[in-house]
Amino acid sequence: MAAEPLFGAGLWHFGQFRDRYATDGYGPPVSTLEAIDRAGQVGSLSVVDINYPFNPADTDVAQLEERLKANGLRAIALTPEIYTRKFSRGGFTNPDPEIRRAAIELVSESADLARRLGCDYVKLWPGQDGWDYPFQADYKALWQMSIEAVRELAQRHPDLRFAIEYKPREPRNRMTFSSAARTLLAIEKMDVPNVGVLLDFGHSLYGLESPADAAQLILEHDRLYAIDVNDNFRGWDDDMVVGSIHLVETFEFFHTLRQANWQGVWQLDQFPFREDSVEAARAGVEVMRTIWRALQILDVEALTEAQSRQDALAAQRIARKALLTAQVEG
Amino acid sequence: MAAEPLFGAGLWHFGQFRDRYATDGYGPPVSTLEAIDRAGQVGSLSVVDINYPFNPADTDVAQLEERLKANGLRAIALTPEIYTRKFSRGGFTNPDPEIRRAAIELVSESADLARRLGCDYVKLWPGQDGWDYPFQADYKALWQMSIEAVRELAQRHPDLRFAIEYKPREPRNRMTFSSAARTLLAIEKMDVPNVGVLLDFGHSLYGLESPADAAQLILEHDRLYAIDVNDNFRGWDDDMVVGSIHLVETFEFFHTLRQANWQGVWQLDQFPFREDSVEAARAGVEVMRTIWRALQILDVEALTEAQSRQDALAAQRIARKALLTAQVEG
Amino acid sequence: MAAEPLFGAGLWHFGQFRDRYATDGYGPPVSTLEAIDRAGQVGSLSVVDINYPFNPADTDVAQLEERLKANGLRAIALTPEIYTRKFSRGGFTNPDPEIRRAAIELVSESADLARRLGCDYVKLWPGQDGWDYPFQADYKALWQMSIEAVRELAQRHPDLRFAIEYKPREPRNRMTFSSAARTLLAIEKMDVPNVGVLLDFGHSLYGLESPADAAQLILEHDRLYAIDVNDNFRGWDDDMVVGSIHLVETFEFFHTLRQANWQGVWQLDQFPFREDSVEAARAGVEVMRTIWRALQILDVEALTEAQSRQDALAAQRIARKALLTAQVEG
Amino acid sequence: MAAEPLFGAGLWHFGQFRDRYATDGYGPPVSTLEAIDRAGQVGSLSVVDINYPFNPADTDVAQLEERLKANGLRAIALTPEIYTRKFSRGGFTNPDPEIRRAAIELVSESADLARRLGCDYVKLWPGQDGWDYPFQADYKALWQMSIEAVRELAQRHPDLRFAIEYKPREPRNRMTFSSAARTLLAIEKMDVPNVGVLLDFGHSLYGLESPADAAQLILEHDRLYAIDVNDNFRGWDDDMVVGSIHLVETFEFFHTLRQANWQGVWQLDQFPFREDSVEAARAGVEVMRTIWRALQILDVEALTEAQSRQDALAAQRIARKALLTAQVEG
Repeated sequence: MAAEPLFGAGLWHFGQFRDRYATDGYGPPVSTLEAIDRAGQVGSLSVVDINYPFNPADTDVAQLEERLKANGLRAIALTPEIYTRKFSRGGFTNPDPEIRRAAIELVSESADLARRLGCDYVKLWPGQDGWDYPFQADYKALWQMSIEAVRELAQRHPDLRFAIEYKPREPRNRMTFSSAARTLLAIEKMDVPNVGVLLDFGHSLYGLESPADAAQLILEHDRLYAIDVNDNFRGWDDDMVVGSIHLVETFEFFHTLRQANWQGVWQLDQFPFREDSVEAARAGVEVMRTIWRALQILDVEALTEAQSRQDALAAQRIARKALLTAQVEG
Repeated sequence: MAAEPLFGAGLWHFGQFRDRYATDGYGPPVSTLEAIDRAGQVGSLSVVDINYPFNPADTDVAQLEERLKANGLRAIALTPEIYTRKFSRGGFTNPDPEIRRAAIELVSESADLARRLGCDYVKLWPGQDGWDYPFQADYKALWQMSIEAVRELAQRHPDLRFAIEYKPREPRNRMTFSSAARTLLAIEKMDVPNVGVLLDFGHSLYGLESPADAAQLILEHDRLYAIDVNDNFRGWDDDMVVGSIHLVETFEFFHTLRQANWQGVWQLDQFPFREDSVEAARAGVEVMRTIWRALQILDVEALTEAQSRQDALAAQRIARKALLTAQVEG
Repeated sequence: MAAEPLFGAGLWHFGQFRDRYATDGYGPPVSTLEAIDRAGQVGSLSVVDINYPFNPADTDVAQLEERLKANGLRAIALTPEIYTRKFSRGGFTNPDPEIRRAAIELVSESADLARRLGCDYVKLWPGQDGWDYPFQADYKALWQMSIEAVRELAQRHPDLRFAIEYKPREPRNRMTFSSAARTLLAIEKMDVPNVGVLLDFGHSLYGLESPADAAQLILEHDRLYAIDVNDNFRGWDDDMVVGSIHLVETFEFFHTLRQANWQGVWQLDQFPFREDSVEAARAGVEVMRTIWRALQILDVEALTEAQSRQDALAAQRIARKALLTAQVEG
Repeated sequence: MAAEPLFGAGLWHFGQFRDRYATDGYGPPVSTLEAIDRAGQVGSLSVVDINYPFNPADTDVAQLEERLKANGLRAIALTPEIYTRKFSRGGFTNPDPEIRRAAIELVSESADLARRLGCDYVKLWPGQDGWDYPFQADYKALWQMSIEAVRELAQRHPDLRFAIEYKPREPRNRMTFSSAARTLLAIEKMDVPNVGVLLDFGHSLYGLESPADAAQLILEHDRLYAIDVNDNFRGWDDDMVVGSIHLVETFEFFHTLRQANWQGVWQLDQFPFREDSVEAARAGVEVMRTIWRALQILDVEALTEAQSRQDALAAQRIARKALLTAQVEG
């Protein structure tokens, strides 16, 4: 059997969750170092994507590197927090030029740190860049500001890669980088070699895309830098444990990556508000491993033949046969 | 292993499909008798739910009974077509009292025939009863007309059962019997013993219900007369092959029915627009059988214990263990 | 012209907002007394619905009463916070009986205070009561616990009224009191005279109901205790300024209340994350006043006649004529 | 006041509607010539988009031209029906190369006729090109076939323009040209000067786009060949009368076109299943005229200033002031 992929997770998976109701948090605060220890406890994670600034902000980098090492982890990426209070009216598209600048500088600062930590990419998730109301925004201006900000960052750090994580909405009612195709259009406009896409399975799912098709489109443009997986009820970014609802489409998604021989990390972006975060990560990895096994027993030749006829019944039967025996084969 | 349930299907599953684009139909016309033969060809169906009037309308009933017998089938229900051109502005709620009357009489006529055919119930699907635009309707009047029409039918045929199939929308933008709870409220108002609910898994799914929870609610009121299964992308009534998307929730749905010791037929309501209808039905039964096997190996005791703690991770693991080995066990 | 209705707002409208991204809040913390002052600054509000416990918890009640008076406000309701960290795995349906008890006692405590403050009702919003994953919960048990908890409260405080605010989802992926019909079914089971419904326009809208129809259904059961208005993009509870998207349906909603001669307060439940909360409330009242004026000039007789024919074009024209001149008439 | 825009409609607006339930149609059959007469009866339409083949197929072109003239109409476009039974498993992406060829040839044939009729563009709506089930299709192959088919047509008819009408879904569960951004990406790949986009307001709305933003994006690529307007409940392509739900966003959409000085036709794509089609078109034009008037009185300068601050409350107030007085000004 082929070697398993590397598994990873966003470090926020192990942090404190809040929402607009449980404003005191779903659990106690968790420092960045504590979160790293929890990620280590999962036992099967190799990499983590770390929010920056750290918590607390004065966390010593050397100590963080040590703690990662002690837990057998590597920082695959940093995610600058350009969506907190200061940036609540926008990061790259904030109406105030000083705050736009502050967002760019915060990312640039995290890029320098990502270089030191040997990350594979800097993740850009401009969650506050978009609009809430009809008539609120000059769409052309937002689009330009978004493109220019990312281009500037890519040009300032030509040795690093920047991965844009698109999302249809939340926290903004509508977001600028909302889909795979829109993000690819923006990247073409940027005309730089080191900007790509992080495809979040759940974002794609509730954004009315077929995640496997979105992956294919991004792969075709050679811009698939990273992926995150989770699950939802298709109306919102529920960030549930991977495979808890959409087992079949999750399987199809990973099948597409494998057919393209994509070599990236299988990464979790789950928000276990009411579950133990270490157990939730273990559950997610468990599902990914089951899907990995299903990929080993999938009759790819027969599937390819069925797809050439666009034969849904045959293709589904072949996929189901592999998926519904994967637990045993393991 | 416990005996398998009976499997059935709506006879329209084997008919000609049209929509607003392929107005010439996705295939050639199919008569009621031909559709019965196709249902027989599936090989695993015991009952069918038949649209009335038959196609052609002058189909001989004795011949139909013969044909059912020849195919090892029984008519579990009749579905009067109170949603064709004549009733396009409403059946039970049509603004024209004469058409309201015609709808009631068509159902009554099909009730008499259902009696002769020994059906378990008459299915009521008032698909054209609802509204399309804000301000269009007097909601109170529509609600009253719907309740009174069904009550009259139940009282005229006290020896028969009437099953209301609720649906959030389509063909109307909004429908009167739109959810399990609304339909139960209406049934209480009717105050008759012989009106119940047909729960269509897909309608429940895209109506924002949890189908297993909706089933539980209807069971608690002792009004679950029948079920239909299929699948969709959660935004519309796609009527796909059962389990092609929501394997886990389909499994949960049948688990709930089994825990309640519900004894009804596992019935298909699929619309294989572009697939062979016999093959699509076989695929649906295949999935239902896999789920049936999964029910046999599901550790109900452990699941019940996990549910008592509302432990999502444990409950999902237990369910997954049964589901992802079911294919093999078979 | 008839006298305007009273306008009100949930006090949280003027508080600090957080979400899972801007965990440091969209603005600085706001105490209950400060929020009351902001509500007063709106200039057109007569009542507020106040979260309990107050912020800070030791806020002096006499001082709060004074502050309300100073701002020309009255407490129409208290909303006990049975959805914070302690209750994050459920209030009335928490798997831990002690926490279920704590939720009931917190509501009971707020009921005593509501009596002292002369509120019209105690609002029940069991936001954490529901489930997130398939297989997680025993739906029957959750339903029973919800019904019993509310019944106990109603019986302990027979002189007070309890209004259940239903919502399809958030913060739970699925909630127990999810729709108008489900909540009415639960209220019937409770069999007490002093439990009713608070209809939130936005919850109804994204729950696939037609808010005017939901209002009609609740009015028919004589259980419409209160309403909240806001707006959204129909996929989530965006809590935008009323009328910013669905002007026509908002107009229809208030028309339905007026035809039923419903005398309650027109209340705001908006979350102006990125706007000035006083200005956002003024905007909401401005829209409600415009709609009020539209109601005065609406040709009800012609509308009723068009609705008797279910004539969508005529009904919409009549409604539009009133709505699209309302600003001027004012 | 500036001169009004030209108004138009898809000729199908006046035809016979069917769906999967009212298979006998929502009314009697309507020939192409009869539909042209109905379009003429509206009184305010200048152009129509005509389905090809005509109904009946042997309709004489000279006679059709005459009939258009007699009704003061011009054919702005032809829409080849590459979505009927023959193409139900796909037009440009059909697994059978002969049917793919037949689809291309049907479009080419309609292009020749469009040239003779002096149309502005040939509309491409490959409604059957996409997929229904996970695992059914090789997404890369579908994407390539779609691009190559349109490129071939554009190159064979360099003197004509081809407008792709994108749509998220229906009749396929997922469609290849599903959004503005995806379609623009495909057009870039085609690398031809004469392929653009027809933006259908309703498709954009239920596809989670902001129609005004989608228009802006297409305008920026200089590919906005045409628009269609209608309305829906945001979950499906209900094709309701324009403005019956989303007055504010429809106003914003036309404002964006006007700011860009876009000179195209304001075209209706409504499906009045249960209404008189001539009256429904008149209602649609009435709403568009009201919005046109609102554009005349909109304080663009103040709006631009508010948008530069991304001030939602101010922008909405300015828009509302114009919209809610437009009826009177007229």
